[in-house]
Amino acid sequence: MSDFLSDEQLEGLDAYWRASNYLAVGQIYLKDNPLLHQPLTLAHIKPRLLGHWGTTPGLNLIYTHLNRLIKQYDLNMLFVAGPGHGGPAVVAQTYLEGTYTECYPSVERDINGLVRLFRQFSWPYGISSHVSAQIPGSIHEGGELGYSLAHAYGAAFDNPDLIVACVIGDGEAETGTLAASWHSNKFLNPARDGAVLPILHLNGYKIANPTVLARISEDELSALMYGYGYDPYFVEGDEPAQVHQALARTLDTMVLKIREIQREARQPRSSEAPERPLWPMLVLRTPKGWTGPKFVDGHRVEGTCRAHQVPLADFQQPIHLRQLEEWLHSYRPDELFDANGALLPDIAALAPTGHRRMSANPHGNGGALLRPLDLPRFADYAVKLEAPGSLRAEATRVLGTFLRDVMKNSLASNNFRLFGPDETASNRLDAVYEVSAKTWMAPLEADDNHLAADGRVMEILSEQVCEGWLEGYLLTGRHGLLSCYEAFIHIVDSMVNQHAKWLKTASEVPWRKPIASLNYLLTSHVWRQDHNGFSHQDPGFIDLVANKKSDVVRIYLPPDANCLLSVADHCLKSCNYINVIVAGKQPEWQWLDIDAAICHCQAGVGRWAWASQNDDDPDVVMACAGDVPTLETLAAVTLLREYVPDLRVRVVNVVDLMVLQPSYQHPHGMSDSAFDELFTVDKPVIFAFHGYPALIHRLLYKRTNHDNFHVRGFKEEGATTTPFDMAVINNLDRYQLALDVVERVPRLRDQLQTARSRYWSTMERHKLYLIEHGQDMPEVLNWQWTPANP
Amino acid sequence: MSDFLSDEQLEGLDAYWRASNYLAVGQIYLKDNPLLHQPLTLAHIKPRLLGHWGTTPGLNLIYTHLNRLIKQYDLNMLFVAGPGHGGPAVVAQTYLEGTYTECYPSVERDINGLVRLFRQFSWPYGISSHVSAQIPGSIHEGGELGYSLAHAYGAAFDNPDLIVACVIGDGEAETGTLAASWHSNKFLNPARDGAVLPILHLNGYKIANPTVLARISEDELSALMYGYGYDPYFVEGDEPAQVHQALARTLDTMVLKIREIQREARQPRSSEAPERPLWPMLVLRTPKGWTGPKFVDGHRVEGTCRAHQVPLADFQQPIHLRQLEEWLHSYRPDELFDANGALLPDIAALAPTGHRRMSANPHGNGGALLRPLDLPRFADYAVKLEAPGSLRAEATRVLGTFLRDVMKNSLASNNFRLFGPDETASNRLDAVYEVSAKTWMAPLEADDNHLAADGRVMEILSEQVCEGWLEGYLLTGRHGLLSCYEAFIHIVDSMVNQHAKWLKTASEVPWRKPIASLNYLLTSHVWRQDHNGFSHQDPGFIDLVANKKSDVVRIYLPPDANCLLSVADHCLKSCNYINVIVAGKQPEWQWLDIDAAICHCQAGVGRWAWASQNDDDPDVVMACAGDVPTLETLAAVTLLREYVPDLRVRVVNVVDLMVLQPSYQHPHGMSDSAFDELFTVDKPVIFAFHGYPALIHRLLYKRTNHDNFHVRGFKEEGATTTPFDMAVINNLDRYQLALDVVERVPRLRDQLQTARSRYWSTMERHKLYLIEHGQDMPEVLNWQWTPANP
Repeated sequence: MSDFLSDEQLEGLDAYWRASNYLAVGQIYLKDNPLLHQPLTLAHIKPRLLGHWGTTPGLNLIYTHLNRLIKQYDLNMLFVAGPGHGGPAVVAQTYLEGTYTECYPSVERDINGLVRLFRQFSWPYGISSHVSAQIPGSIHEGGELGYSLAHAYGAAFDNPDLIVACVIGDGEAETGTLAASWHSNKFLNPARDGAVLPILHLNGYKIANPTVLARISEDELSALMYGYGYDPYFVEGDEPAQVHQALARTLDTMVLKIREIQREARQPRSSEAPERPLWPMLVLRTPKGWTGPKFVDGHRVEGTCRAHQVPLADFQQPIHLRQLEEWLHSYRPDELFDANGALLPDIAALAPTGHRRMSANPHGNGGALLRPLDLPRFADYAVKLEAPGSLRAEATRVLGTFLRDVMKNSLASNNFRLFGPDETASNRLDAVYEVSAKTWMAPLEADDNHLAADGRVMEILSEQVCEGWLEGYLLTGRHGLLSCYEAFIHIVDSMVNQHAKWLKTASEVPWRKPIASLNYLLTSHVWRQDHNGFSHQDPGFIDLVANKKSDVVRIYLPPDANCLLSVADHCLKSCNYINVIVAGKQPEWQWLDIDAAICHCQAGVGRWAWASQNDDDPDVVMACAGDVPTLETLAAVTLLREYVPDLRVRVVNVVDLMVLQPSYQHPHGMSDSAFDELFTVDKPVIFAFHGYPALIHRLLYKRTNHDNFHVRGFKEEGATTTPFDMAVINNLDRYQLALDVVERVPRLRDQLQTARSRYWSTMERHKLYLIEHGQDMPEVLNWQWTPANP
Repeated sequence: MSDFLSDEQLEGLDAYWRASNYLAVGQIYLKDNPLLHQPLTLAHIKPRLLGHWGTTPGLNLIYTHLNRLIKQYDLNMLFVAGPGHGGPAVVAQTYLEGTYTECYPSVERDINGLVRLFRQFSWPYGISSHVSAQIPGSIHEGGELGYSLAHAYGAAFDNPDLIVACVIGDGEAETGTLAASWHSNKFLNPARDGAVLPILHLNGYKIANPTVLARISEDELSALMYGYGYDPYFVEGDEPAQVHQALARTLDTMVLKIREIQREARQPRSSEAPERPLWPMLVLRTPKGWTGPKFVDGHRVEGTCRAHQVPLADFQQPIHLRQLEEWLHSYRPDELFDANGALLPDIAALAPTGHRRMSANPHGNGGALLRPLDLPRFADYAVKLEAPGSLRAEATRVLGTFLRDVMKNSLASNNFRLFGPDETASNRLDAVYEVSAKTWMAPLEADDNHLAADGRVMEILSEQVCEGWLEGYLLTGRHGLLSCYEAFIHIVDSMVNQHAKWLKTASEVPWRKPIASLNYLLTSHVWRQDHNGFSHQDPGFIDLVANKKSDVVRIYLPPDANCLLSVADHCLKSCNYINVIVAGKQPEWQWLDIDAAICHCQAGVGRWAWASQNDDDPDVVMACAGDVPTLETLAAVTLLREYVPDLRVRVVNVVDLMVLQPSYQHPHGMSDSAFDELFTVDKPVIFAFHGYPALIHRLLYKRTNHDNFHVRGFKEEGATTTPFDMAVINNLDRYQLALDVVERVPRLRDQLQTARSRYWSTMERHKLYLIEHGQDMPEVLNWQWTPANP
């Protein structure tokens, strides 16, 4: 086969690759003498050697070749570096392109800049060894592995012009999320979305082991990729010139294939939907730590997992110093950089320019592209109610009508999608199907409903893939919401952690613009999974979120549909947060008309005068957060009205959980004086809470009256039972709450015995009825709020 | 092709299948009239219809055919039901086999038993709609999806005689864990381990959508399975007789293939290791809700996602009642059960007997097979130290030598494995390689180390697959430990939740025997991931665990290597817990000799007299939990000694976090009097904690002195920096702790200004040194504990 690249092209590519590798090694090792103008001495070497060489030359090779491709075809391309700790490579590339200097002017493109570039790497107050929010062009942190491909697809959705090149490390490829993400191609519409170009980089090893995919036969690997729905291309070698030729030729073919697929899908046609094509993907097999030291202390290093981190260390041994010097010289830096440390112009000219540079692609700083959603007036979707507790509604179904029109209004700008693991309809948001179906590229069958190639609801039965898609979509400047069964959102705990870290870091990076918030609707929640049982009952996700930085997280527990609307509207307008909304889907009593709901949600917490009773100087505060706790609290109020007619009770409802924290801990926190005013400084507070009680205690442990808070919530008692019994077995039921009041209010002490025996006989009746009838007692099923006599 | 089954065999299989389907429908719908001896009326139907029909007939079909296979070949087979909510099927099967009645004698094998069987299903205080710990023969909960295949492999390891039949739902197959678990075959040694027989059941739909794998071509699906390393067999149809024939023939072929693989691998051979074979797997495509109503209210149901839950509801419509009656009659119950409700003897005879019944396989109640580990004396591995703080050691490396011999002692019984996501060596447990390599079935290459087909260390770069394997291994009566980077253990949060739920439920099931605890070693922890940076820094897993039932979870923070040994020994001996041990791997000062360590760990908390000073009536208590907080606390003590020589300080170290809770909340909790004695009732307590401070506050909010606890810990400030700076940016450093003391002890008030300015100048020096040198100040690096003058 004749050569694909001319000698000149080959030399250029190789020079660029060498320059990037040189800069990567420099970052790992050097704190001075960046161009080896003096003989290398210990004084030039960093005291702590931290960094990861192994994946670096492969990433540099790919990046360099993609640059050629971008220039050749004027591509709009984004780069996602999946392999962990690929920092040295990506930083080197962004520096060579000039973007790094544009973002961080002190890292100039000269010898001083090189010193700064090298020194800051893995250095206190510098940058980390993996790609992070600090790196221009990146939407993906290379710390925790497994999310690159889902992020890449998220970025490609609704960006028809974009190609997202996604390098997947063969270590990362063993993770669950990555393994599931390959199927994302079933949800990518070539007519409407951009393309993802997956590059599986087999360098053969992870930290300490060979990788699974590097050690199966090419036959199996090829079948696996075909089975995932790709057309795999293979490039393999350890001789640079040969690999350059093969890689350039292959990438060229692949880009033409992508263009052909897109051309085909986008041509005017009759009514038929585009079909899922066989997208090209690349398997690139090159040695780990390629071009690094072949042997160190008699052990093979290049091509083994010994090349993973720092192949040469312990510079007390002079031979290591000489090896490092040889290694650096092997890239021939004097042929790459001028005496002042600038990249030679003919090499620099090989990079794309302006926004065609992957490090300067606007999609890599999605906030810069963000347009606010055109939200309909949420109040128009409100439940109309005459009085508190006068009707029942399904909160999420009401929200669904609002989301339908959010979707409708965004159809022109194509910047909103709804995500869910097979649960959008189960979570009762199915009104959205009136304006958009679920994305589905496979041929349709009879009885298929709400499926279409141009659907904008994204459903795959993987919380992780949904989360990864949504993150990628948000990071490239769009909007979205993920609805999920509350218990199973824990599947993405670690992904949420990492996104929170990204948001915190990104907010400290001056050139990063705010992106839309990551919005969760958690429904089918712990108190209404009575039929599905214990495995479906877990309210702990909000505990995880509450551990994150207060400027990143928000937690909302709207008590009814109108509050849910108000909260959802607020979340969809916000930026740079992780918003968690917990709301039930079952028919429940409604409390606030829309005006009251708006005021209540704006305050985040409020005294419900209509439910309180002579509460200027209350005997007790009954607080509640969450829809079911609110219901049980109000039912307890009606019981107490009957038992103790003269009780002075104040009802406080909390929507925004973070108001409970002091204002110096969270921006939403109430001032101590307002808190004391609302919750009193010395009265018992019976707090009915949606989640684990400990969360309330920790949020308010700095408050004056905290010793008087008595919190009821989920105490890990789960079962297949009835809704009311779920409250009973967790001591959150109305009878228990009423008893709690009697127990805690000193002036009711003489009624305690009566109240207790009344409680126990009620519980006995409850249990007997439950076992006999399999459902809740009529007085529970038929309970309805009635206002007290004036 | 001639028929595989004789008419009689076919009839028998079909009758058994009909019987199980009948019982499943009965469970979902009926509370009375179980054999339709009277015409069906509303009074016979449950008031709340809960359950999942869709997956049921497929599971029943597979189970019935596996029974035939077991009898034919006298197989030792375990059944793992992956599809969610397969409860009605598996319960029906266990009832038909008699096991259900053996476990729950009130559910007799007669008409009264049938009423109880039906009624209890999805009924308060009954059983759930998915397979749970209550179901005989099960090791896998069908609630949260995705873990069946990893559980199955875990069960098969070291059980050479066992075949684990694992049904994978096509919904479940979309999850990350499941997608990654297929590669488990690379870690299964046919000579030593049993077999897994994966059955991918394509019924085409999940809750509300078609499934991905049901809608790709057979060509792609077949390639996918081959790519995963399997030899796929396909059976498809919707005509029972044809499917029975094809399924029986195919399963027969597959079992013979498994036997052939095992025979080949197990024959005496020269020295060569067995190779990974191409294991057979089955793709079974049958309609969702097969044999159920074909149409309801004009909509197609069988073969669509409308069959997912309860295909017929709203029995106010008389036609639905008639349809249900016809549906039940379609199984011809009078040909299956006698007038008293017993299964006819010739049908019953088709099931295996005794322990060959999958519901009575001892591996399904692993605790019954559990043998305690033969643990070496852990004290023999202790670090010898003359005095506290006299030397440094790497705690996990010391533990590694103990684990090496745990492994060694278990080689004969083959009942211990070590699991880790590519981190065993990085976590410095590599001494185990002296006695056992990592399991690796692929051909070895030059420079491959510690890899062997008979290795007992399990490494795949998926925390989820490791977790699933270990759970399956434990649930079938063996022992193990999973080591993981602390931050990334969040990847398995939801799996841990589900295992905790399993343990809680199982402990309430009288016939379930205790299984070995699920042991985690979390290392490479938040305070020593300074070089890897923020993405690797998260101590929140213990918060998640602390939310679980107190009789299930234990959290240990050993301050040094000897304490780690003691704690690890304790955990390896324990049953039915989730034990989380957090311990660093870096060289750190050692505090307790082994005798002191044993006493300290047994108590879980202790006053360290050697570090305290005139502490009978202390000015302040300095408490610490975790290795780094302990180091910083002791360093603060030496600083304070210098600043305030007459300070009376008591040092308390906490190993077992649960001692902080009141004894009525956790069995390890200290009594209030002991707590008050140790922590005082009125003195300031400066508590240096490994994790998020809120966890300490919530554990001790019931304690007398809780308002005086001032907790320092991780406050989500992460960076690529130095170890000491990590403490500084989170205010956990020695200088801050010392300042905290000065601030909190009333009699030191007049020294506060001096102390503060001293603190600020130290911090300035710290920061300058850090930026200049990239490492910590000499006084930090060289700090060593010195006892106070007597």
